[in-house]
Amino acid sequence: MPDHLPPQSPAVTTGPLPASLKLHIAGQIHPDIRVAMRQISVSGGEPPLRVYDTSGPYTDIGYSTDIGRGLPAHRHDWIVARGDVEHIAGREQRPEDDGLKAGEARKVPLFDRQGRMPLRAKAGKAVTQLAYARAGIITPEMEYIAIRENLGRASGFGLKQDGESFGASVPDHVTPEFVRDEIARGRAIIPANINHPESEPMIIGRNFLVKINANIGNSAVSSSVAEEVDKLVWAIRWGADNVMDLSTGRNIHTTREWILRNSPVPIGTVPIYQALEKVEGRAEDLTWEIFRDTLIEQAEQGVDYFTIHAGVRLAYVPMTAERVTGIVSRGGSIMAKWCLAHHKESFLYEHFEDICEIMRAYDVSFSLGDGLRPGSIADANDRAQFAELETLGELTKVAWARDVQVMIEGPGHVPMHKIKINMEKQLEVCGEAPFYTLGPLTTDIAPGYDHITSGIGAAMIGWFGCAMLCYVTPKEHLGLPDRDDVKTGVITYKIAAHAADLAKGHPAAQLRDDALSRARFEFRWRDQFNLGLDPETAEKFHDQTLPAEGAKLAHFCSMCGPKFCSMKISQEVREAARKGMDEMSQTFRDNGGAIYLPPVAAGD
Amino acid sequence: MPDHLPPQSPAVTTGPLPASLKLHIAGQIHPDIRVAMRQISVSGGEPPLRVYDTSGPYTDIGYSTDIGRGLPAHRHDWIVARGDVEHIAGREQRPEDDGLKAGEARKVPLFDRQGRMPLRAKAGKAVTQLAYARAGIITPEMEYIAIRENLGRASGFGLKQDGESFGASVPDHVTPEFVRDEIARGRAIIPANINHPESEPMIIGRNFLVKINANIGNSAVSSSVAEEVDKLVWAIRWGADNVMDLSTGRNIHTTREWILRNSPVPIGTVPIYQALEKVEGRAEDLTWEIFRDTLIEQAEQGVDYFTIHAGVRLAYVPMTAERVTGIVSRGGSIMAKWCLAHHKESFLYEHFEDICEIMRAYDVSFSLGDGLRPGSIADANDRAQFAELETLGELTKVAWARDVQVMIEGPGHVPMHKIKINMEKQLEVCGEAPFYTLGPLTTDIAPGYDHITSGIGAAMIGWFGCAMLCYVTPKEHLGLPDRDDVKTGVITYKIAAHAADLAKGHPAAQLRDDALSRARFEFRWRDQFNLGLDPETAEKFHDQTLPAEGAKLAHFCSMCGPKFCSMKISQEVREAARKGMDEMSQTFRDNGGAIYLPPVAAGD
Repeated sequence: MPDHLPPQSPAVTTGPLPASLKLHIAGQIHPDIRVAMRQISVSGGEPPLRVYDTSGPYTDIGYSTDIGRGLPAHRHDWIVARGDVEHIAGREQRPEDDGLKAGEARKVPLFDRQGRMPLRAKAGKAVTQLAYARAGIITPEMEYIAIRENLGRASGFGLKQDGESFGASVPDHVTPEFVRDEIARGRAIIPANINHPESEPMIIGRNFLVKINANIGNSAVSSSVAEEVDKLVWAIRWGADNVMDLSTGRNIHTTREWILRNSPVPIGTVPIYQALEKVEGRAEDLTWEIFRDTLIEQAEQGVDYFTIHAGVRLAYVPMTAERVTGIVSRGGSIMAKWCLAHHKESFLYEHFEDICEIMRAYDVSFSLGDGLRPGSIADANDRAQFAELETLGELTKVAWARDVQVMIEGPGHVPMHKIKINMEKQLEVCGEAPFYTLGPLTTDIAPGYDHITSGIGAAMIGWFGCAMLCYVTPKEHLGLPDRDDVKTGVITYKIAAHAADLAKGHPAAQLRDDALSRARFEFRWRDQFNLGLDPETAEKFHDQTLPAEGAKLAHFCSMCGPKFCSMKISQEVREAARKGMDEMSQTFRDNGGAIYLPPVAAGD
Repeated sequence: MPDHLPPQSPAVTTGPLPASLKLHIAGQIHPDIRVAMRQISVSGGEPPLRVYDTSGPYTDIGYSTDIGRGLPAHRHDWIVARGDVEHIAGREQRPEDDGLKAGEARKVPLFDRQGRMPLRAKAGKAVTQLAYARAGIITPEMEYIAIRENLGRASGFGLKQDGESFGASVPDHVTPEFVRDEIARGRAIIPANINHPESEPMIIGRNFLVKINANIGNSAVSSSVAEEVDKLVWAIRWGADNVMDLSTGRNIHTTREWILRNSPVPIGTVPIYQALEKVEGRAEDLTWEIFRDTLIEQAEQGVDYFTIHAGVRLAYVPMTAERVTGIVSRGGSIMAKWCLAHHKESFLYEHFEDICEIMRAYDVSFSLGDGLRPGSIADANDRAQFAELETLGELTKVAWARDVQVMIEGPGHVPMHKIKINMEKQLEVCGEAPFYTLGPLTTDIAPGYDHITSGIGAAMIGWFGCAMLCYVTPKEHLGLPDRDDVKTGVITYKIAAHAADLAKGHPAAQLRDDALSRARFEFRWRDQFNLGLDPETAEKFHDQTLPAEGAKLAHFCSMCGPKFCSMKISQEVREAARKGMDEMSQTFRDNGGAIYLPPVAAGD
């Protein structure tokens, strides 16, 4: 197939969700920013409800999607206005970047960059949000995030905070200065590569809304470029705040280019996967030079954060030998193999400062990988896991010294009673850098349902302080997620994140629960569907029992039928109780307002 | 349709789960009991794994299913041998029991009881497991349960207990005497009506495995007798420990008869539902006499526990008036309406001792209903909910004084940070009677996914000490669950219950996780499927990406492909690490065993 053609199936799902409208709120410090959010209209005299929106322009009726062109580079002007970056020729794309042998034809179309050149920091400059925050600068990204986290409200929610935050400091109202301060302290990150100007700024930190990540990516076994772009757009439609491209096998570079140019959310990768492809899968053949070249290749494309397993130290590897499931992190096992083969510390650990130098020149954030995370309940919280975590804490301080943003990856498989200690230990040894966990799965006995085994753990660790939850789909451990699995994984993790926000006492989280519950109590079926995380599925389920359109106006549902309805009886009770109280109140007044009445009267 | 015909579609799903064999273990105190359990065979030189089995004879290859005949009455001899029961003519079945008007033809077939008469306690006798336990008697039911909870092991598991039980006392080995003692203390119940001899004894209590309940039942809107029997058999196939028949509308009596005669698990009901049908849905027309007659009708059929909303007191009803979702319990709203209409305490509360008299004559257990449970996050843990819980605590003591077994129903909708207080308050005010909760749902924003919103809460409250978790299906709030929904609900709740057992430190819970994790690490795909809660779904998911039979022998999977496999690399690492340690060990010995070596040698 020739280059520069649109991908095989360029269709992605576009258009708004039911009853939803896209709003854009302008900044005050930076009047040119336009923060997108979704507004759901509600019937019954209720005000519309604004919700956090990760879906990008695809759900904007005014936007015409063309994935061959990519999204508008709306951050470009903010980035160049800072005066600390320059256009560079950049690294040439090579056949081996896509796993092709010399002369082998590319099977997937290239994305047409239309001559756009990569940006890089001018010599000696740190162009990271951390560097700006430390310098006291409120960037457009920071103001964007403040508006976004507040859902556009100009002042505090003024709601009672009813929760247990375990020491987090979620404010009633997020100011741009609060965002700056949290970034400066390293307690939050804004993954925002200067070469990913299509992204809508978002924040990952314990004092903000809990975020979720969806993994996509082709593998050696299956999937195409177009499928991956479609999965990206599909994942953010349902609420993924971040997407990781975990592609392996062929076409890694080109797949990533298509994804980045079409992504309004930060994109993370695990660069060692591509580096390994370049040495044809032989871990021991990896070198610092190949890895370094891969980092630059991906940083120039615009990857927002790199998972780097620099905490896998030689001395920790034997600690995994007696585990039930050894090392289950791909990156971790690659590095462990390298360490053993060379019997020395990995080039990731040895060259950590060099890595920081590259990342600060593009504002790529670290996601320090947990290469020794447990892969089973049996291995949770063991010596290998915690030894690595301590090293990640040390490396966090090295990165911070170079103005590089850091988050820390966490497990994995952990029974409920061992989850909290993970969060506490991470906060302690990593200086409150944001924690980003996979699940954790709370049992190993349900292959096919690991979105649920892990959703339980994710909700709990989110409550305890985890900043971002990496989703797990029903296919985990079994196969590659398809579109339905991606959606199920995203919705499950939106539930976990929201349950965590509620339990932490986020000032606005309960607004949506309450709006939906009022709709439920008043039999506003359409509102119930529309206010939920997945209106389509809710309506489909309702219609399986009571398909008629009239049933959506019915003051009962299929569970009880009209005579038995507790909601209906309860509404009668409410009226009766109110009437009763009015009558009692009248009786009280009629009796002269005395608190204690003679027994004969009280018995009436 | 004439009476006594088989139901419309008598097929139920039978046959063993993959790689599974039914074992029967005999008692020692009572040599005639035969406790069924499932044994999963495992390859790779691993021992077979025994698992708790709720499926009854339907998964026994030696059993020939005929739902028109019903299951064998294997408890009959145990019951009559106690010498405290007598056969009675019993109450005549009347048309109104099935909601039929006089002369109206029955639309569903009767179950043929073949002349079997109901049993009742002889005058003045309490035939409850609580009465026997207090008298120091270890019944066959108690020994059955001890064997069942131990999975047939003759002595303690001898496993390290690694968990946090919040004050529960889960023993390393369950003896018949321990069962008796827990029953005598009221800390556990055995729902075992003397008229349900088909049931396989099981226990509900905080110091035993966490159990789950599945709701089935026809409604005024849809479903047939055969569908309900099929749902019962399907629910227990996947692990439901109890089933509640929540039928409303027509054919309630006949549906229940079919369910009871074919159920190896305890069956619970909410008798007020049927009583309300008898007064054509007018709550205010309910009387003690109609309710009493319904209790006897159902007790004679063999219902094992009754949900009775006796805690809905007149004074509590106005407390619900300002709630977002009022009263959401059907039974609670019926009783609230009755209380308001008559402006007095309900006949359930007023006649509570009379109810106890009936229940002790058949050993029907109380499931004291939480009629004022919250129906939304907004209403969780409010005054109405806790006031009712305190009344349930008082009623527990009244029931215990009459030797009637009691469990307590709990919410509902509760955000994560308010779950633990529910459990603690219940233990405190109800004298440690077992708690039986619906979910709780941890957020209201995901209609269509409430098995997940509630599975999170269920796992947590199970960990904190809840004895039985009532499932929620994906159709909750939207429609009637079909077969797939029942299965999804049951599997989700098996996950929650097992995650709770693990976290509580149940001595044997982790055996299954470890067996499955070993299979995973060693690429024994078939074992991975077979050891999971749902082998069929796991295999189907695997085959969607790698369908070939050969792929089930492959030492890699579709997620990474052969080159990238962390498990494979990890196995190499393990070998290298072991080899490395052996070599290091040899070097150590070669150097004379000195701990500290000269720097030149240490640097090698």
